[in-house]
Amino acid sequence: MENNLWKHIVQVRDTSPLVHNITNYVVMNNTANALLAVGASPIMAHAKSEVEDLVTISHSLVVNIGTLDEYWSESMLLAAKKANSLKKPWILDPVGAGATSYRDIVLSQLLMLNPTVIRGNASEIIALAKSNITATKGVDSTAKSNEAIEAAENLVRNYGSIVCISGETDIIINGNEKIVLKNGHPMMTKVTGLGCTASAIIGAFINVIENKTEAVAAAMSLLSISGELAAVQSTGPGSLQLHIIDKLYNITEAEFSDHLKLSN
Amino acid sequence: MENNLWKHIVQVRDTSPLVHNITNYVVMNNTANALLAVGASPIMAHAKSEVEDLVTISHSLVVNIGTLDEYWSESMLLAAKKANSLKKPWILDPVGAGATSYRDIVLSQLLMLNPTVIRGNASEIIALAKSNITATKGVDSTAKSNEAIEAAENLVRNYGSIVCISGETDIIINGNEKIVLKNGHPMMTKVTGLGCTASAIIGAFINVIENKTEAVAAAMSLLSISGELAAVQSTGPGSLQLHIIDKLYNITEAEFSDHLKLSN
Amino acid sequence: MENNLWKHIVQVRDTSPLVHNITNYVVMNNTANALLAVGASPIMAHAKSEVEDLVTISHSLVVNIGTLDEYWSESMLLAAKKANSLKKPWILDPVGAGATSYRDIVLSQLLMLNPTVIRGNASEIIALAKSNITATKGVDSTAKSNEAIEAAENLVRNYGSIVCISGETDIIINGNEKIVLKNGHPMMTKVTGLGCTASAIIGAFINVIENKTEAVAAAMSLLSISGELAAVQSTGPGSLQLHIIDKLYNITEAEFSDHLKLSN
Repeated sequence: MENNLWKHIVQVRDTSPLVHNITNYVVMNNTANALLAVGASPIMAHAKSEVEDLVTISHSLVVNIGTLDEYWSESMLLAAKKANSLKKPWILDPVGAGATSYRDIVLSQLLMLNPTVIRGNASEIIALAKSNITATKGVDSTAKSNEAIEAAENLVRNYGSIVCISGETDIIINGNEKIVLKNGHPMMTKVTGLGCTASAIIGAFINVIENKTEAVAAAMSLLSISGELAAVQSTGPGSLQLHIIDKLYNITEAEFSDHLKLSN
Repeated sequence: MENNLWKHIVQVRDTSPLVHNITNYVVMNNTANALLAVGASPIMAHAKSEVEDLVTISHSLVVNIGTLDEYWSESMLLAAKKANSLKKPWILDPVGAGATSYRDIVLSQLLMLNPTVIRGNASEIIALAKSNITATKGVDSTAKSNEAIEAAENLVRNYGSIVCISGETDIIINGNEKIVLKNGHPMMTKVTGLGCTASAIIGAFINVIENKTEAVAAAMSLLSISGELAAVQSTGPGSLQLHIIDKLYNITEAEFSDHLKLSN
Repeated sequence: MENNLWKHIVQVRDTSPLVHNITNYVVMNNTANALLAVGASPIMAHAKSEVEDLVTISHSLVVNIGTLDEYWSESMLLAAKKANSLKKPWILDPVGAGATSYRDIVLSQLLMLNPTVIRGNASEIIALAKSNITATKGVDSTAKSNEAIEAAENLVRNYGSIVCISGETDIIINGNEKIVLKNGHPMMTKVTGLGCTASAIIGAFINVIENKTEAVAAAMSLLSISGELAAVQSTGPGSLQLHIIDKLYNITEAEFSDHLKLSN
């Protein structure tokens, strides 16, 4: 797999996939810039009058509930249904899962539409599996990472999704496959919305790369390694935010390969 | 004209016009910062309960449909009508024209209100002219730039607007006048929303500069030259985005005049 | 007081308070990043279906009316009422007070809910006091700063709020206490939304610091000194915006203490 990831990054640059994002207000600018930097073409749009038409012309859809409300959640459902009817991949970013019952209700409706990929941090993945009424009850593992892995496996089993638990270590689970990535930098947690950026970049890779597990791994490692390299040049999270965009744009094969820390 | 453009830039800095923007979520922060950097005062507001009052106190209005929905499109129409009734200039940025029938319906309603200036890329200007039912049918020029110029001339004729086709070359058409600008840098296409920034800066110039063609030319050349100068200092589109804001703020007459590439 | 402010900054870093923001689109990204940089945890959310639940789990609420509309103003009222019922502090940022009658109507409703802190520039504080029907009529002081202080005293008296008038000099009034801060840099007025950032940072300090006047003074001085230090490194407002985030994150006790200009 290691040898394929850079090829996938080049393929996204070469094909410039159109990624339709229904995402939150906080990250729209950064997400659009990150997609441009990796070579994709972003669309950010949410009107119920047009989301289905936009899914139709896009390669993939990214649904991020960060600043959802009653109107936006309807748009998300319309768009995800359309993606399914056209057999196009769509990504679910369950921002703040478990924080309010409203979020969990919307998430349970989105889950029923079988997202191609779900990416969240450990807490979100755990909350998402709990919002799922068919979930195994009584997950009581003491270690949070184990609990998150069980939750992810549950989501994989019930919805057929690829699940990516992101954090200091990123874990990607697809069926019986499991991939572990150990890239990234602690200062990345001080930049708002880098998880949302990760989900958007997965959106850029998911349609044009045939092996979907590798598509997710390529997207996650590209962002994490870019963050690692950008952090060295940064005096704080403000400069890190922009250096990541620069690095997503100008990272070389040597930089990527030298830093990749991937295992099964 | 070349000799007047810098004077116009200074005049905007000196008069600090108030520019009311009903624009998209992706670019609001950058647009506001660009307006501040050129010396203008931005207002970003969209509530139907207040847009007419805000047009009343502003020098100009900028309408950008990037992330439009049913509520926002009503606000845009209310505000543009108010601008017309007060004989204040307003700018239309037809983001994504032609991408969905919803966009084209809203755009045809906005066109009926005779925007003072329309700024878009070649594809958007072509789509906009096609959404216009009175347009010449069967534009079949093989070269896209020729097709865009024909579309722009059509819009100028039908709506009395000044049209600016932006791209590697910017073309400004007003009645029988045509101005060509060849500034800018390829990396600018990798920063989200610089077209939107261009439209906002036109909004800063359009009221306070008497010669409207020169107002548009000054705004477009200021941004393009700032982008050119900023790109030299930038390692990617993340740093370019902020260096452009810095350069809009600190560009000197010598820098501007030495780089201006304008022709008729 | 001077000796306590740095302790308060460290306490916020150590306790990482959760700050719920119902704020404007323009500044959401920067505000979230500023809150992360000072060590707080931001939530940005506005759905009527969940704002009360989010106030319940947060340490404080920040209400900023910059891009308000009919839906958002209802959310703001719901959230502020909930904060009051739970005796949680909430901050009001009356962006554009006085610009439209719609803004003033919404502000008068929010004022009735007795914000813990109000932060605005001199014009906004004056307009806010005038929107208040019980205000002293006929404030006719010739100096605007005097007029703003009278307006602030009026708001303190009528609503029990702490009022912070921000500008070249920041003035904090709480009951009979008055604190004056003379930090900051002129270029900060060219970055959009730094006032909004100030309000958000007050939100980070207001719950976890017992002395509420000191909480506001610590927040305001942290931002102003960070801006002063960041301006030295910046070639314009674009780079200033990010250097402020960096400095909020990495400012040292020595930098803070050496630059603090506080008086009573």
